[in-house]
Amino acid sequence: MRTAVLGGVLVTPDEVIEDAGLLIEDGKIAFVGTREELEESEDWEDELTLDEHDVILPGLINTHTHGPMTIFRGVADDLPLMQWLEEEIWPLEERLDAEKCRWGAALAAVEALKSGTTCLVDMYFYMDAVAEAYAEAGIRAVISHGMIDLGDEDKREEELKETRRIYRKCHGLEDLIEVSLGPHAPYTCSEELLREVRRLADEWGVKIQIHVAETRDEVKQVKEETGRRPVEYLDEIGLLGDDVIAAHCVWLTDEEIDTLARREVIVSHNPASNMKLASGVSPVPDMLDRGVTVTIGTDGCASNNNLDMLEEMKLAALLHKVDREDPTATKALKILKMATSWAEGVYSLAKIGRIEEGYAADLVILDGSSPRMSPCHSPVSNIVYSATGADVKHVFVGGEQVVENGRVTTVDEEEVLERARECAEQLTASNRT
Amino acid sequence: MRTAVLGGVLVTPDEVIEDAGLLIEDGKIAFVGTREELEESEDWEDELTLDEHDVILPGLINTHTHGPMTIFRGVADDLPLMQWLEEEIWPLEERLDAEKCRWGAALAAVEALKSGTTCLVDMYFYMDAVAEAYAEAGIRAVISHGMIDLGDEDKREEELKETRRIYRKCHGLEDLIEVSLGPHAPYTCSEELLREVRRLADEWGVKIQIHVAETRDEVKQVKEETGRRPVEYLDEIGLLGDDVIAAHCVWLTDEEIDTLARREVIVSHNPASNMKLASGVSPVPDMLDRGVTVTIGTDGCASNNNLDMLEEMKLAALLHKVDREDPTATKALKILKMATSWAEGVYSLAKIGRIEEGYAADLVILDGSSPRMSPCHSPVSNIVYSATGADVKHVFVGGEQVVENGRVTTVDEEEVLERARECAEQLTASNRT
Repeated sequence: MRTAVLGGVLVTPDEVIEDAGLLIEDGKIAFVGTREELEESEDWEDELTLDEHDVILPGLINTHTHGPMTIFRGVADDLPLMQWLEEEIWPLEERLDAEKCRWGAALAAVEALKSGTTCLVDMYFYMDAVAEAYAEAGIRAVISHGMIDLGDEDKREEELKETRRIYRKCHGLEDLIEVSLGPHAPYTCSEELLREVRRLADEWGVKIQIHVAETRDEVKQVKEETGRRPVEYLDEIGLLGDDVIAAHCVWLTDEEIDTLARREVIVSHNPASNMKLASGVSPVPDMLDRGVTVTIGTDGCASNNNLDMLEEMKLAALLHKVDREDPTATKALKILKMATSWAEGVYSLAKIGRIEEGYAADLVILDGSSPRMSPCHSPVSNIVYSATGADVKHVFVGGEQVVENGRVTTVDEEEVLERARECAEQLTASNRT
Repeated sequence: MRTAVLGGVLVTPDEVIEDAGLLIEDGKIAFVGTREELEESEDWEDELTLDEHDVILPGLINTHTHGPMTIFRGVADDLPLMQWLEEEIWPLEERLDAEKCRWGAALAAVEALKSGTTCLVDMYFYMDAVAEAYAEAGIRAVISHGMIDLGDEDKREEELKETRRIYRKCHGLEDLIEVSLGPHAPYTCSEELLREVRRLADEWGVKIQIHVAETRDEVKQVKEETGRRPVEYLDEIGLLGDDVIAAHCVWLTDEEIDTLARREVIVSHNPASNMKLASGVSPVPDMLDRGVTVTIGTDGCASNNNLDMLEEMKLAALLHKVDREDPTATKALKILKMATSWAEGVYSLAKIGRIEEGYAADLVILDGSSPRMSPCHSPVSNIVYSATGADVKHVFVGGEQVVENGRVTTVDEEEVLERARECAEQLTASNRT
């Protein structure tokens, strides 16, 4: 089955093509060019004609989130970090179960797809339930069971056991779900656990997701315990590599930035979360200058409070300009690449992040009739600085149309919202008892 | 004609009422309570029933923008400030005419209404064309001809003449448009002009809009020319008062903050613009602590690049947390009040900014079926941290429904977009010749 996408302005993101023509075959992009070129050279069975002002871009890749936490949206804001965690978030997390995580993840998938995200990198608990929700919604995900052992050997075995269970059960599910290893952070995982994580990642050929240098306190704690700063320590024990997705990376020395570049670590920059929790400003311009692969994540809904990658791109662009007092910092096209092509390394089951022949047909079409998309002096500028996730009209994942005119086609949106609301109510009700 | 609005969660913003009941009569709010209370005590001819999860809030008040600049959206980004102004924006502004400003303003009105804004404070040129576009769309606006004399007496007379023309022609138009005085800034207006502005504001009983202390360079320039910092200088010449809307206010001393509080100046905080142009971080938490009335503006689309007040609220909330390294700074409810009730002083033709008896029926209803609004542990949190302008379902201005299910009812959206696109094309085409 060959499907043509005709018309609109295409951002690959390396190139802009007006009145575009795309061909999708077997879930992949088989042709990229103008509509005229496509019509001259190819045939197809099915077609989707876009409006002249619609903008096509690669599916956005959210490189750090905690999907089930969508049911925590707005439950506790504007609190000091430790009070927020200890008095609000952790007690609620103790009341979680597979059912709540499943519907939280289903809500995350609906929100993500409708706002143009086609791949989530996700660390949390009950990840088989989460994987099921993501696969059903038709979104790609790199999932991991979040492991915390705090140096306790029994806990370590338990966490690794759960990770193995998730790997066996979910890896490759529906050709969408990729399982990875999720050691929570250098200050919550023992060296033994981190070394075992590296060993398993090599053995299984999967990614590693980890929070790194998110707060000043973390750096202090890791230094006290190991004598090293977080990135130094992780490098010393051999954890770092091009299969590592390091979330946050706020508090780094220049030497640590060079280490991240040398080890080809994929950094996930989470501006909304870093701003809302007052964690600090990640040195993104320095990382980009020194050759680090920087990508973008929303973090979970407890600290954002949405999964809107279009909003997150704008935050990423704006934050560093004001922080550096330099309006030329973090330019729009770089930001778009952070959210698309530069993030391709997080996923292995297909080639994603670009609109190029051979890549998966993960496409987002923004509605050219939205006032935020008009006029269109620059499609890249409109994507990064003006559009919101709600301007998304159609979304394809692996050639399947999962959003059509703003509605998810794969699951019943109303049912997902209703079930997620019920889970959210149970969560806070049980917390009060 | 009495219209009831039944159901939904109402945020006044001082109070949250579940399963709300509102009565609109003669464009004003005649009753606020629960649906049950309304049904027991009142009758009506017409009604709008909301979904259980819809959220009602007062119409948002954008206290600083340049509506016609919507046709500049994305024309020039990521440039150093003076290069951006001198090489990109000013040459384009020279090519403006009434027609371009009219359709730019029409696009601004459509975008603003669809994203929940019911009142704009706007300074630009060709303001009679702008006023016409706003009145036709049914949005409230406090407009001013932006005056710049740079000490030239002939220019001063010309600017004042245009201001008088706009005042006579547009003040009170359709009971929506309020004309004010628009001296551009202390560094672009002579003392004579500023003193005449104060005299006219007192004579006519209208507001004054002015840019104040936006950049470090401005402070330096004003100090060199007057021996005073901007707020000190404006106070010394008697300009400041509770009828002054001072945009930006980024570079202030504590003494200047106290002056703004004592003179009851209304400050318009513009976080996106300040971030994008790298102007700096306004001391909003200090202003709030010292009793200054702080409100929120988007600035024009050349420096934002949209007019989404829901996005702007989130930026305002997040920016100061990370800047102060304090997650308790600028809490959600305060931010919502900055965008609604605290901004009521910008407008005189009706009471706006709150959902209370006697206030104008300027209402925004957010779509409870948007994933960003689910679950709803806190409607205020969802409004400020999660929703986007595109989650707006219905909007009323003075009891008139100007947005219905996300579509503007007053003007033809497609025509506005098409005409604005044409004007944008002419703008850049003529620039190239």
